[in-house]
Amino acid sequence: MYKTRQGTAQFNASKTEVATIETELLRDYRFGQQQLIEIWGHACAVAITKAFPLSSLSKKQPTLLVVCGPEQNGSIGLVCARHLRIFEYEPTIFYPKRSTQSLHQDFTIQCEKMDIPFLSYLPTEVQLLNDAYNLVIDAIMGPEADHNDVKEPYAGMLVTLKQVKVPIVSVDVPSGWDADEPDKDGINPEVLVSLTAPKKCATGFSGKHFLAGRFLPYDIQKKYELNLPEFPGTDCVIQL
Amino acid sequence: MYKTRQGTAQFNASKTEVATIETELLRDYRFGQQQLIEIWGHACAVAITKAFPLSSLSKKQPTLLVVCGPEQNGSIGLVCARHLRIFEYEPTIFYPKRSTQSLHQDFTIQCEKMDIPFLSYLPTEVQLLNDAYNLVIDAIMGPEADHNDVKEPYAGMLVTLKQVKVPIVSVDVPSGWDADEPDKDGINPEVLVSLTAPKKCATGFSGKHFLAGRFLPYDIQKKYELNLPEFPGTDCVIQL
Repeated sequence: MYKTRQGTAQFNASKTEVATIETELLRDYRFGQQQLIEIWGHACAVAITKAFPLSSLSKKQPTLLVVCGPEQNGSIGLVCARHLRIFEYEPTIFYPKRSTQSLHQDFTIQCEKMDIPFLSYLPTEVQLLNDAYNLVIDAIMGPEADHNDVKEPYAGMLVTLKQVKVPIVSVDVPSGWDADEPDKDGINPEVLVSLTAPKKCATGFSGKHFLAGRFLPYDIQKKYELNLPEFPGTDCVIQL
Repeated sequence: MYKTRQGTAQFNASKTEVATIETELLRDYRFGQQQLIEIWGHACAVAITKAFPLSSLSKKQPTLLVVCGPEQNGSIGLVCARHLRIFEYEPTIFYPKRSTQSLHQDFTIQCEKMDIPFLSYLPTEVQLLNDAYNLVIDAIMGPEADHNDVKEPYAGMLVTLKQVKVPIVSVDVPSGWDADEPDKDGINPEVLVSLTAPKKCATGFSGKHFLAGRFLPYDIQKKYELNLPEFPGTDCVIQL
């Protein structure tokens, strides 16, 4: 819980609210999807550098595994991986079902052309993941995903991610959680990067919690009473 | 002139080289124009916060004038203005000839909806500009512009900008200069933000010079021997 400029408490948005805000950004403010995904993916990468600076990583190589879902959350993961590469981490991407939309395909090609390796399958032997990577970035499902109907290969991947011992960073919503409710049984990320606003499921989240929503027009912030905290300097993320 | 990681000297790109790099980014790396303009505009805004922090401005209000041309350089100016607003500056935009391309129109609407004022004309009485604004951002012409054939209203605007006493920040290339040659007679910016790589005209530039090109894929950097300097932390710009 943070205190904002107005001294009011943290706002946690419902699934419906975040969907409405995104529609408004795209339709009325004429933001592009490509532009939003770039802004959010970059902010996630910056948050990861704050939570896990290169010098803090326990393994010799700064390896990370970025696990991407088929929709927008996955594309944000791809952009995040690209910026992490620029920040001198060594991301590997697992992206089992690639989108057929050219918007998402372009983000994939940008990563491929940056020589970021893509895994062809996710080992079910968790020890292999623990040994290979310093952390796992969960960019599988966003707030719109139906946590009651997680299909393969994602259901199996979540079982694996529940067992990994290296820290998990979740993009926007921990995959498998209902965005409207805190979860006890799902994956247990050490870091959460909330996009636009924290979701209801982040209430009482006990890990490190970052917010990436600085670019939001003031009228949107006011209309939805987002009560964003004051971001320091030119930072695009803030730790709550 | 900077020394790079490899100890080699600063690279200054020709007009042809920067056009080739941009084509390659769009065609082979599948970057989107919207994505590149967002990255560059954001980087320009960050550079301006470094060159002119809010606390350093001489006027009571943190006012800026962003002058935008009809092509891509102008859209980068629009994105820069939007981020400067987020960083708590008070930009005003002068954008006399709006593009008919929806890509550029979307960036305009984002600024309008952020309540950034647009001037309907540029006062020719320079004192009015000196009194109203702490600085002027020149986002009129990019490296592709023909400096030998500057049309109205831009020719008149350049005459005005040559006389203003407040500092000018030029985006990529000082407007009216040939990107391939240093200029003695054109506008005289105090700050230059080079995108991708410094242009040949920046050789011997004596003002503050920033470079925004961190996102460039390593293969592009190598292929064109850009010799980029080492960017600190997660900074998207570096002062050369």
